[in-house]
Amino acid sequence: MMIRELIEKTRTYRRFYQDEEVSLETLRELIDLARLSSTGGNLQSLKYMLFQTVESNKRIFKNLKWAGYFKDWDGPEEGERPSAYIVMLQDQRISKGFFWDHGIAVQSIVLGATEKGLGGCQFNSIDRVALAQELNLPDYFQIVTVIALGKPKEVVVIENMGESGDVKYWRDSQGVHHVPKRALDDLIFTS
Amino acid sequence: MMIRELIEKTRTYRRFYQDEEVSLETLRELIDLARLSSTGGNLQSLKYMLFQTVESNKRIFKNLKWAGYFKDWDGPEEGERPSAYIVMLQDQRISKGFFWDHGIAVQSIVLGATEKGLGGCQFNSIDRVALAQELNLPDYFQIVTVIALGKPKEVVVIENMGESGDVKYWRDSQGVHHVPKRALDDLIFTS
Repeated sequence: MMIRELIEKTRTYRRFYQDEEVSLETLRELIDLARLSSTGGNLQSLKYMLFQTVESNKRIFKNLKWAGYFKDWDGPEEGERPSAYIVMLQDQRISKGFFWDHGIAVQSIVLGATEKGLGGCQFNSIDRVALAQELNLPDYFQIVTVIALGKPKEVVVIENMGESGDVKYWRDSQGVHHVPKRALDDLIFTS
Repeated sequence: MMIRELIEKTRTYRRFYQDEEVSLETLRELIDLARLSSTGGNLQSLKYMLFQTVESNKRIFKNLKWAGYFKDWDGPEEGERPSAYIVMLQDQRISKGFFWDHGIAVQSIVLGATEKGLGGCQFNSIDRVALAQELNLPDYFQIVTVIALGKPKEVVVIENMGESGDVKYWRDSQGVHHVPKRALDDLIFTS
């Protein structure tokens, strides 16, 4: 698959076939993609925790907030929840900062997930204090992001952004998730 | 090409066949990969300036600092410099923050570059004040990063990190660039 097709297919998914297990080996293969990606100053200060059992998944799920633009939707119901989670940590023993390593690593992970027939959702709305306690994290670890993964149970389509410039994604009556994207020329600045 | 192979080939390059032009159309295709990648809250606040002429490349090059670990190397000599640059900007009219969008976008761009036979280098050591002046940037644009691109003129190899844990990349007597990487198990934390 060419990279463009892979990127096009790598959308954010929030509903999954929860019963479809994601193996620990699959998660390790995804982390290996992050490992092989570039990192600022070659510091490699990001670490990862992997979760893919029914019990451990619950410990992560309850500390996440879903889909900021959907005011009347609290996240996927039981049966449509992610089958696995990757918790990305910053190891502050190695470095205080990490440039844009987190984005690079996340993109490698989700592109790899797409190739494996999986999809995911990246979280910044995390109850970081509660999750750090739940996971008994040593204080030198900071939670950077959580990536939820599973076999997607929804259709996500990209469409051209309307005149209004509204960036909000929306769900139609068939449950299809629509994501408005700016046009290429609107991203390129020429002085 | 599978994503793992593409990621493995996507190394940081600092010497190029400077005469090999990178077309504006190629740069636009790379920005389109960033455009199609996910962005926090779907805000899409990153913008891009593209440079690929001899004259404009000079304006970017002089504001970059190369290879922090090479104290006796000021960057590539004339003839081995990048053939193109992408300057990534944050459009603060849209949003103050951008989560880890910059890393996601950079990774999409450099993976696309690899597929096209190009290679690049990502910069944080930028004289941002001077470059913003050079480019006459409106004050609502902040320089996030610069990506230098070209046809690579060096060999870069990944190797296992030594016992010492030294992260510094190094060049051998043949000019081959070596990058020590941590082992997968060292990146995975189990509490």
